[in-house]
Amino acid sequence: MIGIFDSGIGGMTVARAVEQLLPDHSILYLGDIARTPYGTKSAETIIDYSLRNTEFLLQKGSNLIVIACNTASSVATERLRQEFNVPIIEVVTPAVQAVLARSRTGRVGIIGTRATVRSNIYERSITALDPQFKVFSLACPLLVPLVEEGWINKRETKMILRRYLHPLKDKQIDTLVLGCTHYPLLTNLIQPRIGNRVNLVDSSIETAHYLQRFLADHPGIVRKNGDQPATRRYFVTDLTESAQQVAAKIFNRPLELELV
Amino acid sequence: MIGIFDSGIGGMTVARAVEQLLPDHSILYLGDIARTPYGTKSAETIIDYSLRNTEFLLQKGSNLIVIACNTASSVATERLRQEFNVPIIEVVTPAVQAVLARSRTGRVGIIGTRATVRSNIYERSITALDPQFKVFSLACPLLVPLVEEGWINKRETKMILRRYLHPLKDKQIDTLVLGCTHYPLLTNLIQPRIGNRVNLVDSSIETAHYLQRFLADHPGIVRKNGDQPATRRYFVTDLTESAQQVAAKIFNRPLELELV
Repeated sequence: MIGIFDSGIGGMTVARAVEQLLPDHSILYLGDIARTPYGTKSAETIIDYSLRNTEFLLQKGSNLIVIACNTASSVATERLRQEFNVPIIEVVTPAVQAVLARSRTGRVGIIGTRATVRSNIYERSITALDPQFKVFSLACPLLVPLVEEGWINKRETKMILRRYLHPLKDKQIDTLVLGCTHYPLLTNLIQPRIGNRVNLVDSSIETAHYLQRFLADHPGIVRKNGDQPATRRYFVTDLTESAQQVAAKIFNRPLELELV
Repeated sequence: MIGIFDSGIGGMTVARAVEQLLPDHSILYLGDIARTPYGTKSAETIIDYSLRNTEFLLQKGSNLIVIACNTASSVATERLRQEFNVPIIEVVTPAVQAVLARSRTGRVGIIGTRATVRSNIYERSITALDPQFKVFSLACPLLVPLVEEGWINKRETKMILRRYLHPLKDKQIDTLVLGCTHYPLLTNLIQPRIGNRVNLVDSSIETAHYLQRFLADHPGIVRKNGDQPATRRYFVTDLTESAQQVAAKIFNRPLELELV
């Protein structure tokens, strides 16, 4: 069973992509809505929460963990791999691989939460693989609350995006990483504001593809459900109306959220 | 010793007002930054966090608790009074008393978090005391992240405020309650947008005055420090750079935050 956790509901963009690519696999999701958001908090606190989330998913029978949160991926992956003896997939590596495969100029932008940008993980990972790359990172802390409020097509959201993206405009990037699993919901607003020729890398979709290849390379770690239909369960640490609304928007269907 | 807690740093507007009005009293503050914000979360989760915060402040020697958070005041006061045998002061009652004293038309607006507005506590408390009052409540969930980001004078914040306040404009209110301890930082933006004739009630200042009267009426519950200088300690459950910046802005001095 594939266990996926996130600070809240943003990671459901990863779960949705996994559902579509791997329809025969069972999924267990945990959204830590009671402590959301992670991106404004300290590394120590984020690691503590990530340990607890992973323990929950393992107790419920997961054989593999996907950290569907760029913030937790950035600061907690190493610690989770030390503590737990199952494969830990995170969202940064898949996005970094996509950047290296697709960028032609080697000039790349990263947008994410404050904690993700402060960790500098994208720049370190990209330049470790190719020192020629120039990486420009930018924290956009208000985008998570705007998405969680459902303000996806509001004029204020467009203005805030324009203000955030402005420092990237003259950097001549050809690739921009959506380094937060909430941001794919803003793709239609980000693309025209950063320029139509800039290639957007969606860490959610890249992670689902990465997971698909990983499972193909490591058969036996996570079993398909065979003749049984795949189960999907979505747990949350707090149950709120707006979480239910955003979840339904992400999956384009009503989703039953189960309170832990 | 006066114990004060909040979901994060907004409650420091209450602590600041208490420092100014009651300079001889020692203050212990706890900001639950690791779990902030409360206003988007469920009542059960907010009660759970409020119990833990109160326990911490009592263990550290508080003789009286101030809930410096409208959200926690709205949903957790009753439970804290059942559990703990010390006076529990909250921020709703002082604001309600100010409304009844100052409103001449009896048409009153309330702005607050989603949880505060959902609890309906202001409307219930005001109309219980005077059924003639008309109360119009409005959730403004993005104001807390905007304040915590320090976007206090940005154009986007002004636009979002205008959008939020719009439904109140034709209600002919003469009084507006800032029903969240973050909002006093936005007074200068709110006043012109709601109209200069509308009287703003700041729950932080009202609570400090209420506490002053309470202590005068109940001498002996909380002792003054006598010849000792009053101590002030500011604890947080997570330590972040932006929390330190906003805290310094609220107190107009650098503030030493202690990690719990």
